[in-house]
Amino acid sequence: MKTRIAVVGVGRMGANMARRLKESGFDVTAVYDARKKVALALATELRCQAPGRLAQVTAVADIVLTVVTDDEAMERIFAIKGDSLLRGAAGRLFINCATVSPSVHVAVEERATKVGAQSLEACMASSINQAREGTLYLMLGGTVQAFEAAQPVLNVLANSSRYIGSAGTAAQVKALVNMVMNINTAGLAEGLGLGAALGLDLTLLREVFSQTGANSRVLQTDGEDMQNRDHSCFFSAAHAAKDSGIALKLANDRKVRVPLAKSALAQYQRMVEAGLGELDKSGVAELTFPGRSPTKKGAKNSAS
Amino acid sequence: MKTRIAVVGVGRMGANMARRLKESGFDVTAVYDARKKVALALATELRCQAPGRLAQVTAVADIVLTVVTDDEAMERIFAIKGDSLLRGAAGRLFINCATVSPSVHVAVEERATKVGAQSLEACMASSINQAREGTLYLMLGGTVQAFEAAQPVLNVLANSSRYIGSAGTAAQVKALVNMVMNINTAGLAEGLGLGAALGLDLTLLREVFSQTGANSRVLQTDGEDMQNRDHSCFFSAAHAAKDSGIALKLANDRKVRVPLAKSALAQYQRMVEAGLGELDKSGVAELTFPGRSPTKKGAKNSAS
Repeated sequence: MKTRIAVVGVGRMGANMARRLKESGFDVTAVYDARKKVALALATELRCQAPGRLAQVTAVADIVLTVVTDDEAMERIFAIKGDSLLRGAAGRLFINCATVSPSVHVAVEERATKVGAQSLEACMASSINQAREGTLYLMLGGTVQAFEAAQPVLNVLANSSRYIGSAGTAAQVKALVNMVMNINTAGLAEGLGLGAALGLDLTLLREVFSQTGANSRVLQTDGEDMQNRDHSCFFSAAHAAKDSGIALKLANDRKVRVPLAKSALAQYQRMVEAGLGELDKSGVAELTFPGRSPTKKGAKNSAS
Repeated sequence: MKTRIAVVGVGRMGANMARRLKESGFDVTAVYDARKKVALALATELRCQAPGRLAQVTAVADIVLTVVTDDEAMERIFAIKGDSLLRGAAGRLFINCATVSPSVHVAVEERATKVGAQSLEACMASSINQAREGTLYLMLGGTVQAFEAAQPVLNVLANSSRYIGSAGTAAQVKALVNMVMNINTAGLAEGLGLGAALGLDLTLLREVFSQTGANSRVLQTDGEDMQNRDHSCFFSAAHAAKDSGIALKLANDRKVRVPLAKSALAQYQRMVEAGLGELDKSGVAELTFPGRSPTKKGAKNSAS
């Protein structure tokens, strides 16, 4: 018999993961989203249920994949009281993909264990296209048993699944990845923005960057988009702000000084405040290029 | 007849470039350094002169390569009055490799032109080993004629020579390269430092960084050194501070907001103030790792 799987949180990432699971032979029985319409549309596409209550999701699945937005959403779907994925969850495996605070993953694992379920954090370091194609880079945190139980799912979603350690550790690594990525992105926007202000050929400048100590992954993924103001959303500025915020809280808790992470967070918060939160993270260039003002005008944004 | 070449400023980079030129068949006739002893030692090694006056350097060379430390040193060697490389410089070609303010390169070109000489800025985006092996990455600024006249020298020093544009433009690009590199380096130090504070396996963390959006050239060159506190000097923190300072001045002149560049500059200035300026730029990790204090103690530094 096919493994029954449900997906909770079907935004851009979750929906693509559900599609990928279905075409890989899983029995996708239900999808759920706080935005009822979004869930219904995907349920029609995938010919599955879109239950109104979380307990109904758990009832029809062996494995529940969650891809929600933030700490609060995780608390809601794994609530101790009221409607919750934890109702009748004995024997279930939860695979939690949202980038949330490490402490939330630890709490969810505790609650799942209490009701006889397993929980695994599966932090993603990739974007929408990789979710659709099953080529995600996943960092896993939880018990080794949960990691092993999740293998069939991980195998079709990811081309690299890295076991990090106990609950919370994968989320810590993920927070650090995004903290460093956001710093590099905001820094690149300053380099290209200043280059533009100096009247330099930005295509040449990017080529020189790529050959030197200024090279980075974000130069490859975001450099040209910054130059062309193409900020179609793969990873939103609002998400960047959230993730840098998680990292900064970890740093404050441990009394580690991280001035660049602070500066990067401030830039992404500035974008959100200026109404640019749904631009791709490359949109941070709108803050540094001459003649670009912090407004949506002029910047392309095909985010849904 | 062999081209006669002299090298002014024979620190780690200049000395290696002089060695490379000699073994590549150039007639290295003179070396000069403000530190007389340093010049004499290299002159003995290369069996050439170490004149006491700059005009004597110009007198024995067709091409003068300069690799001095900063704006002030450039002003000194190309002084309008008194002893100067410009005395009797008609027909000479100056190739200026120091990372200095773009405006200084523009001024030097003007002065050289006035006395019938040519000037080319040759900004380097590589380090000591590449200088020794003739595999530098060079960014050239000046007239096309000067660029063409310099070809035989560039060919033995570099494996990539990129013509950027008129005088000052290569120095602008170089300042931007180092500004972005310094941001990425200081940001990486925060990511690894916080990882250490969280008790994460840093080798695993660096591997995850390398597979994700956190990847960068400095992760490859400096990440392991940060972890191991091996700050043998390839590119000093003091130089990083100087170069970020040049970029920041450009940004201020153009009224471009560069908060991350400012934070990175502050970190490198902090190192200099703590007496860590001669550590490699990777030494910025000494400011972010738990249990490391801003003192030379504990950090390895094999800089001469």
